[in-house]
Formats: sequence, structure tokens, C-alpha cells
Amino acid sequence: MGAAGTRQRIVEAADRLFYEQGFEATSFADIAAAVRLSRGNFYYHFKTKDEILDAVIALRLINTARMLEAWEAGTDDPAERIRSFIHILVMNRAKIMQHGCPVGTLCNELSKLDHVAKEDAAKLFALFRGWLARQFAALGRDADADALAMHILMRSQGVATLATAFRDDAFIQREVEDMCAWAEAQRSGAGRRAPLSSPPP
Amino acid sequence: MGAAGTRQRIVEAADRLFYEQGFEATSFADIAAAVRLSRGNFYYHFKTKDEILDAVIALRLINTARMLEAWEAGTDDPAERIRSFIHILVMNRAKIMQHGCPVGTLCNELSKLDHVAKEDAAKLFALFRGWLARQFAALGRDADADALAMHILMRSQGVATLATAFRDDAFIQREVEDMCAWAEAQRSGAGRRAPLSSPPP
Repeated sequence: MGAAGTRQRIVEAADRLFYEQGFEATSFADIAAAVRLSRGNFYYHFKTKDEILDAVIALRLINTARMLEAWEAGTDDPAERIRSFIHILVMNRAKIMQHGCPVGTLCNELSKLDHVAKEDAAKLFALFRGWLARQFAALGRDADADALAMHILMRSQGVATLATAFRDDAFIQREVEDMCAWAEAQRSGAGRRAPLSSPPP
Repeated sequence: MGAAGTRQRIVEAADRLFYEQGFEATSFADIAAAVRLSRGNFYYHFKTKDEILDAVIALRLINTARMLEAWEAGTDDPAERIRSFIHILVMNRAKIMQHGCPVGTLCNELSKLDHVAKEDAAKLFALFRGWLARQFAALGRDADADALAMHILMRSQGVATLATAFRDDAFIQREVEDMCAWAEAQRSGAGRRAPLSSPPP
């Protein structure tokens, strides 16, 4: 396997370990062991754990952008696209109940560490936020598209955190249905009272 | 200062450091330094960081119970009590924007570490959940009081996580107002459509 392939394997292993165990709890040695590399070969690619973190965030940004593109390509209906976002909570619920949301937990950890990469990690949220806002705008909600995007992103984070603490499938299912109903009710002129009806201040 | 006082100082310093930096990122030495204790004096009280964690969770459970009692003593109106809960997001927003919610981030971290204390940490959420459910029941919503409690707890967690990532005061204020309006709309017979109107499955 070439150097690029080895580098990719390191980043993918670190991505998984940072998610499953946390960034601080994952050592250089853990990552090297996961990819079965000698210390020398490992150091050829990365000198510090912070360098690996940068590469992990870059990989997650690429993978997230691809996922959003796939949802967008899958349907012309913005409400259906928003449902694709909401349904991550169901699709990934087993992992979320064990390790939380990969984005939210990384941002929280890096913020506590006051880590230089915390702003970069927040770009993962910003990617979802911008994409969701475009879908709400396409639903006819230009004026408050960003507030609506933040609202549904907020709910997904809240569900993820309580799913981790309580591991309750019925709770996830109930909240996901409520989120879908809420998103559907945001169609401009749907005639229903939107719980978040005022534009951002 | 007596042994009990010294022990209390250790637990309070650990409580603060676990919140500000995270459990994994806080070393025995960090805590000893914060309370200016010799290693020998420190070890007299605690042999492991896990013992300190148990004491921190116990302290947080006591402090949380006291806070809930104070809110309950402050007013007879259950909706007003729920607003006291919601307003933690505003009162503590400076700390939340830096370090997240103390409960949510601890539960997330211990779950990633698959730590033996993760169930104990979840009792902090359970305390809020039970208290909130009693308030919704007092509002006349016995049938779905627990689902409503989980819903507002979920929102508080979502707001905390995005507050940490985006540090946006206007977002917090907007969502807090929306949460208060939602809670008010849960009064039985208020005649407004409740976003989460179905009982838990």
C-alpha cells in the first residue's frame, strides 16, 4: 500500500476512535495499534495528534458534503431533504446511543479543551446549517430560513444527547416524528401555526 | 481546616475542572494543584480519579435537588417553575458557550469512555426529568407528562450544544422564548395546538 493509502487508513482509524472514545482519551499509540503501523511509519505521516485531528475534521467535512449532495440529488422536495437529515437520528441510533453525535460531541470536547481546532470543528455544524437553511428557503421561508435551520439542528443535538443518556428507542422515534411534522408545517402558506414563527431578531 | 472541609474543597475543585476541561483531560495533579494540597494529604481523601468522580456526581445530585426545591418553593405555578428551568440557559449562557451543559457533556464523555459511572451521571438528567414531569402533570398533562419533560429537556440540551459551537446570544434568546411559549401552550385546555400532543407510545 502506498503512502497516500497508509495516511488515509490512519485518518479513518483516528476518525472512528475520536468518535468512539473521544479525542483526549485516544492516544497516538491507540491509533498506531488500530492501523498496525510501526512508530516510524506512523511518524512519517503525522507528528502530532493535533495534525491528525485536522485531517479528521477535513475528512468529516468532505464526507458530510457528499452526504448532503446525495440527499439533494435524491429528491426535488426540500421537505423530503430535511426529513433525510432528521432520519440520521434513526439510521445511526445504535451508535448515537453509545457515543453521541459525532459533530456535537467533538465540538463540546474541543471547546472544553479550548483547542485551536474548535472553530474548524464548528464548520461541520455550519455545513449542516447552511444546507438546511437553503432547504427552508426553497420551502418559501427565506425570511427565517437560518433560524429554522438552527432550530432543527438544535433538536437533533438534543435528541442525540438524551439518546446517549437514556438509550430509549421510543423517545428517539417520538421526537423524530415530531421533528418531521414540524418541518412539514414550515411550508410557506401551509396554514398551520409554526412553533418558531418569528424571524430571527 | 478539618478533613471534611479539605475533602469538600477537593470535590468542588474537581467539579469545576471536570466541567471546564472534561473528566479525561483533568489529572489528579490538576486537582491537587487547584486545592494546593500535598500528594500525601490528597491521597488520604481519594485514591483514584474515579472515586473523585463519584463524589462529584453525588455533589451535583445534591446541588441539583436543592435548585429544584428552590424553584418549587418560589412559585405555585408549574408553568413558572418550568420557566425557571428554561432560564438556566440564559443565566448560565456565558459558561455554556465555553463549556457546554455540565450534565450533557459529562454524560456524553462517560458514555464514550464506557465508564462505570455513566449510569450515575444519567441520574442527574433523571432528576430534571422527574421534576419536569411533575410540573407538566400539575399543568393537567398527566397522560404525557414524561414525554413533555423529555421534550423540554431535549431542547435545553440542543440549545446548549449549539450555543457552545456558535456562541450566538440571539440564538439562545430566540430558542428560550420559543421554549417558554411552548411550555405555556402545554396547559391543559389552553386551546392551542401542542407541537407534541400525542402521549408516549
